[in-house]
Amino acid sequence: MSNTHPLQSHTVADILALIQREARRVTSYDVATLAGVSQSAVSRSFKPGASVSKATHARVMKAASQLDYTPNAAARSLNTRRSNLIALIISDRANLYFPDVLAELSRQFALRGMRILLFTLPSETEIDQVLSEMWHFQVDGVVVAAHLSRAQVAEFSRRRVPFVLYNRQLRDANINAIVCDQLEGARQLVSRLAGFGHRRFAIISGPDDSVIARERMRGSVERLAELRLPAPLIVGGGDDYASGVRGLSEILEQLAGPPDVIICCNDVMAIGCLDSARHEFGLDVPGQLSITGFGGIAPAAWISYGLTTVRQPVQNMAQAAVEMLSTLIDKGSSAPERRVFSATLIEGQTARLGAPL
Amino acid sequence: MSNTHPLQSHTVADILALIQREARRVTSYDVATLAGVSQSAVSRSFKPGASVSKATHARVMKAASQLDYTPNAAARSLNTRRSNLIALIISDRANLYFPDVLAELSRQFALRGMRILLFTLPSETEIDQVLSEMWHFQVDGVVVAAHLSRAQVAEFSRRRVPFVLYNRQLRDANINAIVCDQLEGARQLVSRLAGFGHRRFAIISGPDDSVIARERMRGSVERLAELRLPAPLIVGGGDDYASGVRGLSEILEQLAGPPDVIICCNDVMAIGCLDSARHEFGLDVPGQLSITGFGGIAPAAWISYGLTTVRQPVQNMAQAAVEMLSTLIDKGSSAPERRVFSATLIEGQTARLGAPL
Repeated sequence: MSNTHPLQSHTVADILALIQREARRVTSYDVATLAGVSQSAVSRSFKPGASVSKATHARVMKAASQLDYTPNAAARSLNTRRSNLIALIISDRANLYFPDVLAELSRQFALRGMRILLFTLPSETEIDQVLSEMWHFQVDGVVVAAHLSRAQVAEFSRRRVPFVLYNRQLRDANINAIVCDQLEGARQLVSRLAGFGHRRFAIISGPDDSVIARERMRGSVERLAELRLPAPLIVGGGDDYASGVRGLSEILEQLAGPPDVIICCNDVMAIGCLDSARHEFGLDVPGQLSITGFGGIAPAAWISYGLTTVRQPVQNMAQAAVEMLSTLIDKGSSAPERRVFSATLIEGQTARLGAPL
Repeated sequence: MSNTHPLQSHTVADILALIQREARRVTSYDVATLAGVSQSAVSRSFKPGASVSKATHARVMKAASQLDYTPNAAARSLNTRRSNLIALIISDRANLYFPDVLAELSRQFALRGMRILLFTLPSETEIDQVLSEMWHFQVDGVVVAAHLSRAQVAEFSRRRVPFVLYNRQLRDANINAIVCDQLEGARQLVSRLAGFGHRRFAIISGPDDSVIARERMRGSVERLAELRLPAPLIVGGGDDYASGVRGLSEILEQLAGPPDVIICCNDVMAIGCLDSARHEFGLDVPGQLSITGFGGIAPAAWISYGLTTVRQPVQNMAQAAVEMLSTLIDKGSSAPERRVFSATLIEGQTARLGAPL
């Protein structure tokens, strides 16, 4: 940057006129000129704990106020090594969870003076490209709501960028993570359904790249095997209403009649499956067929649905992620910790859980 | 920052060991040391168009690669005066639009190498506090999906920060804005309903701080007056399912029987109103009562609802906002422009629009 300044006079009006003429923003050099101090003195005045006399500090603050100067975060971050930017890596699919998680994380980080820089992924498998872009931003930390490979985890360590996995985990690795116990949630759901007489299970799986959906499916399948019940019919699903509608029709084609229950690996599919069962196939849910979801999104509780589902404590999980990442940023590395939240079975009106065997 | 470096030897391994010992990230000084050039030569090597010899550039790039060094965006932005950060100011209320708008904006900006820095608002009226925080980040531009006062608009100009209003407008001011014509959408809805015999109208308003909801209400009320139909009963609403449920019960209390139609100022309230009408009050919708929404969110199209609503072209609007803001950032100021998108009446199954008078 230039060390000379074309300004001759030092009044507020002249400096503002010059800035106007040059169609640029106010810089620390303008403040230095008006205050009659060096640019370095201006920098030091805005740097917490830096050496600067009281008189100089006062002159700089007065000039900054007259020129309406705000030291920009980029310049400040070079001094404090803090940008107050938190990267959030999250799938951009039309997931009805998105607003809850995002709004809660944003609120919680804002309370600590930090802001979310958003990196949305078209698919969880396209994370490499997003990471290589992210390294160019000096973020203080990262919340990763997507699946990381071991190589990617190693890159975070090598670059010394603190991160927290949100609702994901990596087996056999010590990583800071906030998770909901999907496996246990699925096991409890199956146990309860089996306890109330459900025998023939079908499952609509989630998107191929969703680790969470796979865990939900695995927990269900494992528990069914332990209970010596028939292996479930599994059909492919996705992340939207339409895949629940398609999943149901595929299940009904493959089986002689409806199964006892269809476990859908997320709520929005369960809602599609439920609507189609009732309104397209004229099935009595739960009389002839139980349907369950996973997640606990707002529409699951709407009167038309009253979905039986396994709810994740989104608010608590988001708070925990913010706390954990803030601590990592403030204190540097600490012993890796995994905070595991339990899911809660919500007994709605779409599964026969009312009368024990 | 220090201009001396304690490093004596210049091998990759030694430098990496030092960085490890000091528990810090790789800096441009480490790269300079390994490459045997000045720190300024490293800076210039990473600055597009800066003067640096081919040989020096090659040495710097090799050293940077060996140390896995990425120039951080904060440092780069001081050179290029571009941060590639776009602030998005948006309400954090549990709005089911949020994911669509946000995901689309994020995708579109990412295609241009820009990322969204998220500033969520608990209420549209609390924007002052968020703005004063935002000025500290050197953002290239701002998308404002909230209501700005004239004083706030003036502050954007004074600070020379390009911005685009998203789905908001300020009367009698020349501001770059992307809007959906709420007023005209409401007028068309009312005209169509009146054309099919609806006479007694009720309206559930939106949240008090929502300019969009107020425009929808104003358009409806104005058109009713023009058509010389009775003034509608208006009850207070909000931004969630529960306020639609409450709104219906308030309307039914105040009137002898159900009105011909209830216009809800957003879809999620319309869904609550519809569920309650059918399942709590046993009303035939649309046989006894028509119910309409505004917005066109995904759940409005679900089989249980098939809501008659006024849809906004969210994807087109988000694309237009990104294009407009990118142009402002690249070319500096231009003639203020307002791009107005039309809303589309979606004829669902919740209003009697089938048989003309």
